[in-house]
Amino acid sequence: MTELVAVPATRPASLLVVGTGLIGTSIALAARSGGLRVALADTEPAALAAAVARGAGRAAADTDPPADLAVLAVPPDRVPGVLRDAQHRRLATVWTDVASVKAPVLAGAEAAGCDLASFVPGHPMAGSERAGPAAADGRLFAGRTWALCPVKGTDPGAVDAVRGLVRLCGATPVTLSPQAHDRAVAAVSHTPHLVAAVLAAVLARVPAEDLRLAGTGVRDTTRIAAGDPELWTQILALNATEVGAVAEAVAADLCRAAAALRAGPPDLAVLAELLAAGRAGRAALTRTTPAGPQPAQARDLASR
Amino acid sequence: MTELVAVPATRPASLLVVGTGLIGTSIALAARSGGLRVALADTEPAALAAAVARGAGRAAADTDPPADLAVLAVPPDRVPGVLRDAQHRRLATVWTDVASVKAPVLAGAEAAGCDLASFVPGHPMAGSERAGPAAADGRLFAGRTWALCPVKGTDPGAVDAVRGLVRLCGATPVTLSPQAHDRAVAAVSHTPHLVAAVLAAVLARVPAEDLRLAGTGVRDTTRIAAGDPELWTQILALNATEVGAVAEAVAADLCRAAAALRAGPPDLAVLAELLAAGRAGRAALTRTTPAGPQPAQARDLASR
Repeated sequence: MTELVAVPATRPASLLVVGTGLIGTSIALAARSGGLRVALADTEPAALAAAVARGAGRAAADTDPPADLAVLAVPPDRVPGVLRDAQHRRLATVWTDVASVKAPVLAGAEAAGCDLASFVPGHPMAGSERAGPAAADGRLFAGRTWALCPVKGTDPGAVDAVRGLVRLCGATPVTLSPQAHDRAVAAVSHTPHLVAAVLAAVLARVPAEDLRLAGTGVRDTTRIAAGDPELWTQILALNATEVGAVAEAVAADLCRAAAALRAGPPDLAVLAELLAAGRAGRAALTRTTPAGPQPAQARDLASR
Repeated sequence: MTELVAVPATRPASLLVVGTGLIGTSIALAARSGGLRVALADTEPAALAAAVARGAGRAAADTDPPADLAVLAVPPDRVPGVLRDAQHRRLATVWTDVASVKAPVLAGAEAAGCDLASFVPGHPMAGSERAGPAAADGRLFAGRTWALCPVKGTDPGAVDAVRGLVRLCGATPVTLSPQAHDRAVAAVSHTPHLVAAVLAAVLARVPAEDLRLAGTGVRDTTRIAAGDPELWTQILALNATEVGAVAEAVAADLCRAAAALRAGPPDLAVLAELLAAGRAGRAALTRTTPAGPQPAQARDLASR
């Protein structure tokens, strides 16, 4: 987006985090390390207490003045309602979320009558198959990208405040439209999750002794299949058109491979073509991945 | 297998490694660390020189006495011919290989007229998407399983010698039939490789800027797609029946998922069922994976 007025790089001094799961608590920990005052809220008292005990901040109080910025780290389908209620209560002046889909969340916020000028849809490209404040890590976002999806009408100052938080977390902000975001994550996040799940399902159907032969390959390939099925059902359904198209293409390639294997003799040319295409895709990913190794702590968490 | 005569645990004192790629050189490095005399051979002078330069052993000479054990670390389709020639030249007294498929290799060795009593088919369950002696690591096998597939007629003393090498490499020998091995690796290695490839192929078809949003999930899920297409075409084709069946099942699940996403509205029950099955399979894998973390060095290599 073009900003006609140069806005100085600012960063918020006070942060409200609504939802103290893995992502919310990790953001809070990073903000605390960066010197921000952090208030925490969660409908689940145990999750809130665990985040406070981790040193992520103090529990938000009704008497708190509005925070400079609020991060709504709740499931995608809850963002519009939580945003509407929190704006009504004037809990903050600028808002962002962390949902894995952006166009439906923005449409939901608009339908709910939220103030959209102060809302900057966001999505940190980091996570873990582990959940909850116990798995949180203030370095989870270091060296990673963080999508921001401002639209026509979003206040540039609001975008700047969210960018300040992103940089404070050690991440690189990447600005793109909600539609471009949802198309991109269908390919680089949502379909990989679905594919990891259907592949991992095989492992529940084979004799347990066969699993003794599992090496790092299958472990890495299926790691994200440990994610929460309820949350991921919601994410996939909210990005159904995009993910459906990519999943169909992957299924078609896999059917071609199976047919090539079933042929007598196996069709080596088809297998070689599919494997070479996979290697080319992997090379494209390696080329465009942010340079440099991740901090050991974040890498360990993410790879568990 | 039942051994009527108790064979004392022995380990070879001298080792010949034929094929100084990633696996052969890694075995040689482990053997050297364990005090064995190691001779190396490769049809590719540069690969041999690189392995020698890594300290993996000395180049084999025509005047060498027979080694106690030879490891044939060559592609699956070359094992029968290399075994026949090496046995003819009496380069060693006991033989093993590292091919990812076992029944076709054993059948090939039989058809080639090899001595099968002294040949213990083997498959270390470790590797890397990187290839060649430069990527070798003597700790690659530490904490991993190593399949051994002796059959009726295999000399128990030969099995014992190979087990000695496996343990010296820090791995745990797992004995099973060639057919059981090939069925197991179809599920835990070969199909995951194929699925990683067709998934990674997506990444070559999307706009490069979409890859900026890639996180650790897609990176782990597609890591093994970087493997050598030629070698993997051969592996998949040699285990075509088993891999074809598993790949068909995965493709069918993925088609169901795509249809559930394409439905209006998306079929949440089908998505939730598939994701829950994936989580169950991942949990089964986590339960049966050898306990304890891998040594950092081997883990780093494997996760690159």
